[in-house]
Amino acid sequence: MNIPQTSLPRVVIVGGGFAGLALAKGLENKEVQVVLLDKHNYHTFQPLLYQVATGGLEPDSIAFPIRKLFNNLKYYHFRLAEVLEVCADKNEIKTTIGDLAYDYLVLATGSKTNFFGNKAIEKHAMEMKTIPQSLNIRSLVLENFEAALLTSNFEERKALMNFIIVGGGPTGVELAGALAEMKKGILPKDYPDLDIREMQINLVQGSGKLLDAMSADASKKAEQFLCKLGVHVWKNIHVTNYDGNLVTTNTNKEFRAATVIWAAGVQGETVGGLEKQCIVERANRIRVDAYNRVVGYDTIFAIGDVASMVSEEVPLGHPMMAQPAMQQGTLLAKNIVALIKDKPLKAFQYHDKGSMATIGRNKAVVDLPKWKFQGIFAWFVWMFVHLFSLIGFRNRAIVFLNWVYNYIRFDRETRLIIRPFKNKNNQSFQSKA
Amino acid sequence: MNIPQTSLPRVVIVGGGFAGLALAKGLENKEVQVVLLDKHNYHTFQPLLYQVATGGLEPDSIAFPIRKLFNNLKYYHFRLAEVLEVCADKNEIKTTIGDLAYDYLVLATGSKTNFFGNKAIEKHAMEMKTIPQSLNIRSLVLENFEAALLTSNFEERKALMNFIIVGGGPTGVELAGALAEMKKGILPKDYPDLDIREMQINLVQGSGKLLDAMSADASKKAEQFLCKLGVHVWKNIHVTNYDGNLVTTNTNKEFRAATVIWAAGVQGETVGGLEKQCIVERANRIRVDAYNRVVGYDTIFAIGDVASMVSEEVPLGHPMMAQPAMQQGTLLAKNIVALIKDKPLKAFQYHDKGSMATIGRNKAVVDLPKWKFQGIFAWFVWMFVHLFSLIGFRNRAIVFLNWVYNYIRFDRETRLIIRPFKNKNNQSFQSKA
Repeated sequence: MNIPQTSLPRVVIVGGGFAGLALAKGLENKEVQVVLLDKHNYHTFQPLLYQVATGGLEPDSIAFPIRKLFNNLKYYHFRLAEVLEVCADKNEIKTTIGDLAYDYLVLATGSKTNFFGNKAIEKHAMEMKTIPQSLNIRSLVLENFEAALLTSNFEERKALMNFIIVGGGPTGVELAGALAEMKKGILPKDYPDLDIREMQINLVQGSGKLLDAMSADASKKAEQFLCKLGVHVWKNIHVTNYDGNLVTTNTNKEFRAATVIWAAGVQGETVGGLEKQCIVERANRIRVDAYNRVVGYDTIFAIGDVASMVSEEVPLGHPMMAQPAMQQGTLLAKNIVALIKDKPLKAFQYHDKGSMATIGRNKAVVDLPKWKFQGIFAWFVWMFVHLFSLIGFRNRAIVFLNWVYNYIRFDRETRLIIRPFKNKNNQSFQSKA
Repeated sequence: MNIPQTSLPRVVIVGGGFAGLALAKGLENKEVQVVLLDKHNYHTFQPLLYQVATGGLEPDSIAFPIRKLFNNLKYYHFRLAEVLEVCADKNEIKTTIGDLAYDYLVLATGSKTNFFGNKAIEKHAMEMKTIPQSLNIRSLVLENFEAALLTSNFEERKALMNFIIVGGGPTGVELAGALAEMKKGILPKDYPDLDIREMQINLVQGSGKLLDAMSADASKKAEQFLCKLGVHVWKNIHVTNYDGNLVTTNTNKEFRAATVIWAAGVQGETVGGLEKQCIVERANRIRVDAYNRVVGYDTIFAIGDVASMVSEEVPLGHPMMAQPAMQQGTLLAKNIVALIKDKPLKAFQYHDKGSMATIGRNKAVVDLPKWKFQGIFAWFVWMFVHLFSLIGFRNRAIVFLNWVYNYIRFDRETRLIIRPFKNKNNQSFQSKA
């Protein structure tokens, strides 16, 4: 793949998410050659994907071209590629664009949707882990409303206007809230010929509380906020199947719906060739030691969602979120430099800065280590934290402008079907095939 | 398609472009029911498509959701549909979502790319009349650069970095200028491993001057601007074929190129069923009388690009541009109201407000009826005219923000391959199939 040979040790980073970029940033101007591979030519700011899916933000404002980040660095090389296999015995990886030797390999491949083996759900439900997937949801929601206008069959129309979100974590909660705001402010104006009361938003959570990983106060308040917005929250229910029309659960409850969005689980995006020696744990994550080294290998590391660093304190590993990913990337940069210089490594210690979720206009929940709060102030905190976490001045400015506009005007203007999701000839329910 | 029956006369408008929207706007609060059909749920601001194709603007900032335009109007109905056939004898149209009766039918279907019957070019060349097409160009340009990095074959690399734009009208000129600015400011930084001098931008024009419809001064200056930016301008050359690799012309000149963008002609987007009586003229436009009535019919009208209104003054009809389209739409609204009230109609008179094209940073050409000027002031005029012609405050604000950012930073940040254009397994040249 035409990467120049140098006398510097080569660090190959697979994945330009939060973990991979933090690592690459940390290695700037160090005595290494960095090769960053990603299957997209941009970094995705995943926490705001739900706003793309619901017409509040343009996709381009939460994406940042990776090449621009390393414009002025001499020993940095980006390649648009997917890794097919790691050949650890040869210190080499096979990719879609050829083979590449490494001195240090870092898997920062992130995670993908976990359907827990259910093929029917995988085929018919929507996922929201990438920008194209979010745009598919945006198209489908609007296409379903267009289709609902055309049918005189009450049952069919109700199914077209019934949205089932499976999973009550931050993604599910934020998406349900955003859909509820579309229902309130936009859809009745855009579709005056429809009875908006027929639109239902159902949030189905397997456990007994929403936002499982957050405080009891946050869970309770999030549920209150959602109910106030008209979202039906179903707890202690597991979705067992979806055939593109009927959602069945482990209880008597069933839903007839044209749209199911699956936010009920993620799993590590592992890479072939490691299975021989490494330990793959719960949620398909690769076991690493306290230095993010993949157990069983000397020069292969894993950081972020794909890495499982278990200890007595965190028996299930760190949460699959941006914070631990970035912290691991930053530390690993230092540790790789230390390794090269034969200096001692530093063990990873996670600093939990807290977590938060937004439900809608003036409604958010924030858990800080020493302070938990909800409501309008939490919402401002949520906004500023997300705004300043975005990469790039232009993206920040455009997201800010959209938010101010949407807030003042109660609007979400990017409700555009740029690439239709449904088959043109299939006016009934969708399939992802 | 579930359009309510009323006692008002029903005006069916096909197409939500400049012409269709001007008409719909003009019929607001008049004693008619308006049904607007479009195959997209948004209006496209076509003059800025080339900026989407070259990473300067996000697609969502030049699109506007049609439904929002008519949010508060009672007798307005929008449907996402394509018209298949006009059944004039029954005053009815057949569409992809069912049949619809009309009292007045207005075709504002616009235009599509004209390949003049060349199937090979149609298959392999890119077009730029819609947002998805512009996004395809954006993806392809970047994908070709990624591919150029990977090959050691000089000829192949040169072809991947060779961009042929066919047609020296405003679209071709603006696109060539924008690509030249990418070559200058962005690509050398993003692809330091490539020798940017291998990138070529060729603009091929059939006639003896660029911007044929503009003044001699504008043509000359545009060519100077382009040459200064490093664009190769070829005049009096007709492209005769393109097989995905080799561009042949009516001269000895040939180009080996992975990307050909066809901006050499447009043709009216006509609708089936009218052929029986109407007259289809040059560039597939439908002959209309001075009131935009389709010749041969009483209650069918055509406006904008698809309409050919010839007279002694304009033997070839009005130019296929936004200005005549909007003026025809606005007048037809008044004429339809007059028709209903049995009042006399007013014949269309085109007021040419001038035309303009931008070549790049500080470089534009403007022809006003009484004043022609070029350079930095022309460029400011171009920007403000386009900014204020955009629909929607949010779009204007976001385009403005992008332009200021791009100007200050010499940047174009939306260089994102969101939907790859090339077949993943085909690292050689593209096909649109």
